[in-house]
Amino acid sequence: MPSDPSELPRGPLAGVVVLDLSRILAGPYCTLLLAELGARIIKVEDPRGGDDSRQYGPFIDGESVYFAAVNRGKESIGLDLKKPEDRAVFEQLLAKCDVVIENFRPGTMDKLGYGWEALHAKYPRLIYCSASGFGHSGPFKYAPAYDMVVQGLGGIMSVTGHEGAPVARIGVSIGDLGAGLYATIGIQSALFHRERTGEATFVDIGMLDCQLSLMENPAARYLATGKVPGPMGGRHASITPFGIFPTGDRQIIIAAGNDGLFRKLCAVLEAPAMAEDRRFATNGSRTEHVLALEGEIADILKKDVAANWLAKLDAAGIPAGPINDVKGALEHPQTAARRMVVETATPKGKKVKVIGNPIKISGFADPPTRAPAPALGQHRDAIVAELAKETK
Amino acid sequence: MPSDPSELPRGPLAGVVVLDLSRILAGPYCTLLLAELGARIIKVEDPRGGDDSRQYGPFIDGESVYFAAVNRGKESIGLDLKKPEDRAVFEQLLAKCDVVIENFRPGTMDKLGYGWEALHAKYPRLIYCSASGFGHSGPFKYAPAYDMVVQGLGGIMSVTGHEGAPVARIGVSIGDLGAGLYATIGIQSALFHRERTGEATFVDIGMLDCQLSLMENPAARYLATGKVPGPMGGRHASITPFGIFPTGDRQIIIAAGNDGLFRKLCAVLEAPAMAEDRRFATNGSRTEHVLALEGEIADILKKDVAANWLAKLDAAGIPAGPINDVKGALEHPQTAARRMVVETATPKGKKVKVIGNPIKISGFADPPTRAPAPALGQHRDAIVAELAKETK
Repeated sequence: MPSDPSELPRGPLAGVVVLDLSRILAGPYCTLLLAELGARIIKVEDPRGGDDSRQYGPFIDGESVYFAAVNRGKESIGLDLKKPEDRAVFEQLLAKCDVVIENFRPGTMDKLGYGWEALHAKYPRLIYCSASGFGHSGPFKYAPAYDMVVQGLGGIMSVTGHEGAPVARIGVSIGDLGAGLYATIGIQSALFHRERTGEATFVDIGMLDCQLSLMENPAARYLATGKVPGPMGGRHASITPFGIFPTGDRQIIIAAGNDGLFRKLCAVLEAPAMAEDRRFATNGSRTEHVLALEGEIADILKKDVAANWLAKLDAAGIPAGPINDVKGALEHPQTAARRMVVETATPKGKKVKVIGNPIKISGFADPPTRAPAPALGQHRDAIVAELAKETK
Repeated sequence: MPSDPSELPRGPLAGVVVLDLSRILAGPYCTLLLAELGARIIKVEDPRGGDDSRQYGPFIDGESVYFAAVNRGKESIGLDLKKPEDRAVFEQLLAKCDVVIENFRPGTMDKLGYGWEALHAKYPRLIYCSASGFGHSGPFKYAPAYDMVVQGLGGIMSVTGHEGAPVARIGVSIGDLGAGLYATIGIQSALFHRERTGEATFVDIGMLDCQLSLMENPAARYLATGKVPGPMGGRHASITPFGIFPTGDRQIIIAAGNDGLFRKLCAVLEAPAMAEDRRFATNGSRTEHVLALEGEIADILKKDVAANWLAKLDAAGIPAGPINDVKGALEHPQTAARRMVVETATPKGKKVKVIGNPIKISGFADPPTRAPAPALGQHRDAIVAELAKETK
């Protein structure tokens, strides 16, 4: 199935073929990362409309940029898994692929006759990854979930923001992205295990489980102390001084994560008394006296503007920086230097810029462009022809 | 080096040995995930104090729960990499391990003589992963960074919260956790590639790059439209209705991600006119008229309490849920059913509960307990003895 080697994407996963039934974000973000690492992704879409996210804005000339960003470089085949002729094509693909991934509710694939047990019996080398809201066990197994629901259930919203202020969603779909990241990790460990043993496994990712793993620190804190962590505004629960500080103009971030950095910070602030203050001698005692310490630091910082402070902090080697908006983040000199913005295209060929590959690995190219996102069913004929050629 | 097979952790990465020089969270979270997947983790710590996070609260009887949660099940060896006798032990370990990971600033390992080029020349099968603030290239290569700094630089804080309200940190260390997740993915793709080709590679993870990848949607939005995305409160930028809604008592989340779910929602709300309203016919037009739609929904929801609405939404199969605090998240019935809270211990043996493994893979145990976190240097003698035995 990985046909002409010259067509293969370059990357550590070159040669791996993933049959991708997933929609919207959790699964598609996983297969985006796998594609960036060199795997071939064959996106199986419902011929009646395809991936829901083809309807999600923003749009350019009627085409979804949301969809194009996450599905660039993938192939699309439209298959109605209730029609016998399409099922035959799907089963030929199952026999040839390394991994199948879906993010339906548990039970959906079983009803189609394509649950893990059935597929494993017939295709013993096929790795199966499911990314669902709650995973394939437990009392909530069949409950529906989207990003926002697991953000709420997992508690991340309750520790973000300012005390007493209205609660807010994390501004990126961390419920979906989290599940996509852990699914990628699970699939790769399954690929490694299969490489060593020949055995294929079922990777069962629940979005809520992933949220809980991201909550490891507030959860450990609660489990150890019985105190329910609340929102901390701009502060860190365990490290001081570490957070958002005012200056003469805009706010900046200072992260003095250990005693050495704190002493350097006192030097930059020209505050020798602060360095000697016994309340501020260790990270533990600084965290205990966080309000007093933050007040003293703020009083000094307000005497000059952010740019000047950041230059001094930078020169002293103290981790610090501005609070960027999206424009600022993308204009940061490091963003271009690390090739974190690349060019791709919508299915109709409209060029769009999107985020690049954060996983830089020696020996593999990190090109400035990516193949376009597919139109619904665009590669059906080519894939069917490829299958026919191989079975001759 | 994976010695007695009966001592090996069970998992898809069983047999993989990771030499872990990382500290605090980004690297240690990566090796926690690798340990959960069955790899053996040998934590190399500075004998003078070890991992900084041993000093991070909360504490139980003077021991850090922060440290214990992330470092359970790892081994610790204290090595001063400036002393010849400790360098000799370290080099024996390098010769036997599969992966070395560190999260120093670029240059630190080179100064010790242990940069990627030097190690690759001497240990051609050793995979090297660096997780640094800005990665090993670009003008900010040598700049220091902590979680909070890259949260600020990457823009995630600018899209989280409510318009006009003070900006806040994401309440978990998403800068570190993100880098840890992408590092895990990079290491596993390198392991797969080495398994197939014999070639070891350098995995270069920059925390800022990882933040940008999490920002793929707001970034694509900005790059496509030129409009800088701001905080959206409880709303999703592309999907409507999808967010936080008031009820007669507390707020709930409703996520009606497609037209079918929206029609079901109108039925639950007993609002046939809303279902027929042409402004609300598609996700695109609902997003355009989000304020009008949210207002109509809120007026109906306020007539009853959250628990009643959630029961009705649940019965209708509409993704919805409460906004949990940490206690609520951990008490969710699914959390225990999925074994997402497990028991481990501090180095001195104090039992603590921590978050379990979100990556469930068939055929591998998901036990209710984990080996304790190590005391600084606890396994030095055993590891040195093991090395001596093997070189005989």
